[in-house]
Amino acid sequence: MFQLLALPLAASVLVLAFAWFFYSRTLQENPGNERMQTIAGHVTAGAKAYLNQQYKIVAIVFVVITLLFAFMAFGLHLQSPWAPLAFVTGGLVSGLAGYFGMRTATAAASRTAQAASESLDKGLRVAFRSGAVMGLSVVGLGLLAITLWFLGLGTIMTDLGAKTGILLSFGMGASLQALFARVGGGIYTKAADVGADLVGKVEAGMPEDDPRNPATIADNVGDFVGDVAGMGADLFESYCGSIIATAALGVAAFAGADPQMQLKAATAPILVAALGALLSVVGVFLVRLKPGETQAGLLKALDRGINSASVLVVIAALGVVYFMGFENYLGLWGAIVLGLITGIVIGKSTEYYTSADHKPTQQVAKSAETGPATVIISGIGLGKISATIPVVAVMVGILGAFALSAGGLSLDKLPMGLYGIGFAAVGMLSTLGVTLATDAYGPIADNAGGNAEMSGLGKEVRQRTDALDSLGNTTAAIGKGFAIGSAALTALALLASYVSKLQETLVSNGASIELSGGITIPAQDATLLQLIDSFQLNLVNPLVLVGFFTGSLMAFLFCGLTMNAVGRAAQAMVNEVRRQFSNNPGIVDGTDDPDYALCVEISTRGAQKEMLIPSLIAVLVPVLIGILFGPAGVIGLLSGALGTGFVLAIYMANAGGAWDNAKKYIEEGNFGGKGSDAHKAGVIGDTVGDPFKDTSGPSLNILIKLMTMVSIAVAGVTVAFEIL
Amino acid sequence: MFQLLALPLAASVLVLAFAWFFYSRTLQENPGNERMQTIAGHVTAGAKAYLNQQYKIVAIVFVVITLLFAFMAFGLHLQSPWAPLAFVTGGLVSGLAGYFGMRTATAAASRTAQAASESLDKGLRVAFRSGAVMGLSVVGLGLLAITLWFLGLGTIMTDLGAKTGILLSFGMGASLQALFARVGGGIYTKAADVGADLVGKVEAGMPEDDPRNPATIADNVGDFVGDVAGMGADLFESYCGSIIATAALGVAAFAGADPQMQLKAATAPILVAALGALLSVVGVFLVRLKPGETQAGLLKALDRGINSASVLVVIAALGVVYFMGFENYLGLWGAIVLGLITGIVIGKSTEYYTSADHKPTQQVAKSAETGPATVIISGIGLGKISATIPVVAVMVGILGAFALSAGGLSLDKLPMGLYGIGFAAVGMLSTLGVTLATDAYGPIADNAGGNAEMSGLGKEVRQRTDALDSLGNTTAAIGKGFAIGSAALTALALLASYVSKLQETLVSNGASIELSGGITIPAQDATLLQLIDSFQLNLVNPLVLVGFFTGSLMAFLFCGLTMNAVGRAAQAMVNEVRRQFSNNPGIVDGTDDPDYALCVEISTRGAQKEMLIPSLIAVLVPVLIGILFGPAGVIGLLSGALGTGFVLAIYMANAGGAWDNAKKYIEEGNFGGKGSDAHKAGVIGDTVGDPFKDTSGPSLNILIKLMTMVSIAVAGVTVAFEIL
Repeated sequence: MFQLLALPLAASVLVLAFAWFFYSRTLQENPGNERMQTIAGHVTAGAKAYLNQQYKIVAIVFVVITLLFAFMAFGLHLQSPWAPLAFVTGGLVSGLAGYFGMRTATAAASRTAQAASESLDKGLRVAFRSGAVMGLSVVGLGLLAITLWFLGLGTIMTDLGAKTGILLSFGMGASLQALFARVGGGIYTKAADVGADLVGKVEAGMPEDDPRNPATIADNVGDFVGDVAGMGADLFESYCGSIIATAALGVAAFAGADPQMQLKAATAPILVAALGALLSVVGVFLVRLKPGETQAGLLKALDRGINSASVLVVIAALGVVYFMGFENYLGLWGAIVLGLITGIVIGKSTEYYTSADHKPTQQVAKSAETGPATVIISGIGLGKISATIPVVAVMVGILGAFALSAGGLSLDKLPMGLYGIGFAAVGMLSTLGVTLATDAYGPIADNAGGNAEMSGLGKEVRQRTDALDSLGNTTAAIGKGFAIGSAALTALALLASYVSKLQETLVSNGASIELSGGITIPAQDATLLQLIDSFQLNLVNPLVLVGFFTGSLMAFLFCGLTMNAVGRAAQAMVNEVRRQFSNNPGIVDGTDDPDYALCVEISTRGAQKEMLIPSLIAVLVPVLIGILFGPAGVIGLLSGALGTGFVLAIYMANAGGAWDNAKKYIEEGNFGGKGSDAHKAGVIGDTVGDPFKDTSGPSLNILIKLMTMVSIAVAGVTVAFEIL
Repeated sequence: MFQLLALPLAASVLVLAFAWFFYSRTLQENPGNERMQTIAGHVTAGAKAYLNQQYKIVAIVFVVITLLFAFMAFGLHLQSPWAPLAFVTGGLVSGLAGYFGMRTATAAASRTAQAASESLDKGLRVAFRSGAVMGLSVVGLGLLAITLWFLGLGTIMTDLGAKTGILLSFGMGASLQALFARVGGGIYTKAADVGADLVGKVEAGMPEDDPRNPATIADNVGDFVGDVAGMGADLFESYCGSIIATAALGVAAFAGADPQMQLKAATAPILVAALGALLSVVGVFLVRLKPGETQAGLLKALDRGINSASVLVVIAALGVVYFMGFENYLGLWGAIVLGLITGIVIGKSTEYYTSADHKPTQQVAKSAETGPATVIISGIGLGKISATIPVVAVMVGILGAFALSAGGLSLDKLPMGLYGIGFAAVGMLSTLGVTLATDAYGPIADNAGGNAEMSGLGKEVRQRTDALDSLGNTTAAIGKGFAIGSAALTALALLASYVSKLQETLVSNGASIELSGGITIPAQDATLLQLIDSFQLNLVNPLVLVGFFTGSLMAFLFCGLTMNAVGRAAQAMVNEVRRQFSNNPGIVDGTDDPDYALCVEISTRGAQKEMLIPSLIAVLVPVLIGILFGPAGVIGLLSGALGTGFVLAIYMANAGGAWDNAKKYIEEGNFGGKGSDAHKAGVIGDTVGDPFKDTSGPSLNILIKLMTMVSIAVAGVTVAFEIL
């Protein structure tokens, strides 16, 4: 086994070394003048304070759940004794990746501003390579942790199924920490953003990032804790989830085959991911402006990096599946390639619907001429329609990957088909090292712009950082598309893992199952399809339907709760900014400094308070449904959440992105430009879109997977304590 | 059989006689002074013009689909030869019910204004009894048509399953016409409403229903074509759908039993509905203000009517199931009662979330203090959270009805359990005669207010009609809750009908099915569960998942398309009103009449143009999915649409209702009152909510059922031509 995993081990260490290299390079850049450094210091301190506070609360939740895990493992003997530790490490490593990424990002802001004052290319390189630290930390740490767990468990046990089962607990830890990071960070950033905009910009007429606005530092901190740390944790769990689920499916697909082949099937996705991680580093190096290229070349430069990495991965993946000795290596390779293509189609569709270069967003901007109401209506219309292409792409990806790997759509080879679907997800995320870099550099550029504004750097610097930032809006939307697209693929694989987990419990009880034909067979002899039949996991079963409605409701409820949380936290921020302005007129005159720290604290407190309930619901509901309605209810719950959450997430992310860019399009002078009524309507659309795209929408893919992981973790318990 | 159906036949005739009675009473009322009659004439002419135009287009669509039906029946022999005729009559009778209701409503507006000038009680009685014409026409015509079809088919064939199959085609006709009525009417009314508000109220500062506003007549017409005719057709299809589906399930549940018992099982839901219809008439008579009761008594008066009818139905239903000789009559009775209770819980929850008497809507109003963005955010938050109680209520209803009628939750008695669920839906809608009256009277009161305003009647009259109208907002929201709640119950029953229909096709081909245990059995011997197993209608099947994503997408796409349709049609209206104002300054001065007819025409044309694509998608997608992905894809599609559509519909209806009432709450003097910034923000929320609650949201329950009915109708064809 060590031979198979030597490459991932080496690759992850190498990738982390590059992350370290880019980090130290960032630190070597000129941090700008004293004022720039002071401002950056404020933001860094705020971000650290938030993260410390956040991790404290998350730690408490983790301690409680770990104890429950331990009780399941040692008290009830319904979980592996290694599961609690795996769970904890999943959360820890995810937190670590977020911490690295954010530390770099905070250090990079003033340095990017300084670099942008020299040239656009230099600005791009500093911002992008700092963003790459996030991307490479996520994939490097994820790969390292999975590989080490695999190797470590290999010294203790031989049962591959048990190993991947323990890895799923690692995945659950990563998902739970991701949910907190996304929801907490999302509430933080949007409370600060909305608060800063509503009082500072709209009421007091200050420009964006005006140093007199007390919420402006909190707003800048928010970019980091929400859009860097939150997104990093989000994609960490997507990345690890897809690898682990595919490994588990490989074990199932090759059950009964040559043990060596089964081991290869389990490790193949790790290898593909490892090669993808290495090739992402190549991609990162390719992102630079060619001499003479200006703003228009930015997107090309990013595309160059991503496309090169993708092409290289396609070649490398063929090597992996061929040399691993898969009989149908072309089919599996096809699934990986199809996954990558699906990701690209989702990305392009996102770009089409959210970039002001295209008609849909321009029409949202145009509808601003008749006021805020029509902006909102048309943005919602656009967002809902925009789900079509991604959903169809994922549908094609699912069927294609299944058919290619299983040699057709017959369910006789269900595990093999699911293995192919898992590989499609791994393929989609294989270049995450570089794609995530394109996401994370956006907030860095945004913050660099804020730093430039507050430090009074020249107009040209701001224009350059704005160019970098506005591109970041689109890349961020694309990143969200990847996260939800891979979630849709992975979720199906996880559903199958859940059924396998149930089988494990039945087998350990020596139970038999009854099939619809009236025959009874021992649980250990049952195929996946027979288990499904016996558990009655069909769509006419009222228990499935009840779970199903709950799942669909969960997606909406979760969004409703987080939307309201942002609303309440923003309200508190509005009141604080108004209070500072009225208590101390010196702030508005610019003769006195506002109290930035108090605003930072309000956002921090608001986020902490508001993130708990939605997150706990996500953990508790699957347990409750499992105990009440058994496997049928759980499968219904997970599918309902998946079906609704998938479409809802795309809708919210795209509507939010379109509103943001529609506003920017108006600001560029269209439909009356800055200060016109259309602009005001556009700002309102953008504000509504803020929690859509940065809080509620992107949390949904984590919610879907977390609920699945929880269901798998407690499968044994729910079978033992099922009520109905 | 005639004995069993004599009561429904008599009841439907009697109920229609009462509808006629109320209609003629309305005509006898004082139609007001000449100006009032002139205005009412404009509105009536506009409504008639719209309906004629609408029915023309719907007729063309019906002709095309009937020809396809006929081809399936006579060319391919994959449908009953009676199905095309049943389909046509479903559409015709639905149209007829809408026509009756609207004719009365248009006649009632000026008469209600006149009556309200005399007393609040008189205003209530004229408006409510005119609304009752709609309610009673819907249930009377629905019952009459179903009973006549049943009796007529009884003289031709003995196979009960075939009969209920033909009735399902009747249901499909009703659903298709309902979708056109809801979508077309919804686009019409909201285009006019938004257009009238944005230019007339916001830009020109005119009050609501100002006669100088060119769109004001179109706005008033819209209330009738959308909220009366559209809602009537909507509930007609819900009502007939629940009765027909339950009848079909009765046949399945008692397959193999004494034929007489099976016949009774098929006719029992019709009997319960018939008694409910009669008792609704009693309820209608009970709605009146007691001497001395004022505004606060209005809701009590309506409650009195509905509650009395409900209690009487509970008693009567026990009689039906007892005297029909059902072994488990108490269980079935429990299911009916549970359905009624579920409806009431949904209604109360809707009231809680959408009435300004309660905290949620007040908080939306409060968020208007920080501008339109926070109003939108909090309304969306409220709407999404508000789905929780209705979803849980329906879940309890489904499981409870199943367990009560099947004596437990085991799937061994699946058909019996589904029969119980169907009965719950019938129970929920049994008092539709009176509950729909409480819906339909709202727009009448609204229009009466418009008439009073335009005719310059005293302030007190407007206050009285406003009191009637604002209550109508809540009752309309409750009506939507009933429609979607019953859809969720009926849809499950229809899923089972779809599977039975597949079986029929297999049996007629002499086919066998293979079970997961490896056994093969003849299709005619298969139980529902075995069919489900053999068709692999489970949630780990990628074909199911693909259908499932399509279904979820359909709900969102449909909403997106209709939202955009309203946006575009409203834009055309805005431009026309602006044009009239700038071309003829005499209109704003009040010295010249605006061109009302042109605005009516714009709304009409916009609605016709925009309703086609969403409606055709609803018909074509199930056929396409069936041919591409077979039964697994179709079951996925229908469940996905159900799961997502159910929650989405409640969210949109409640968010829209809350925004509307939040605005009214501000207008009552809270948070700055009329003309304040908060009020402007509230108006924006209300405008966004318009298509939420009156176009997109309420179309979803029709969409769900129409797709199911289409799938059932083409089941034979899709099995014959399946590709994958």
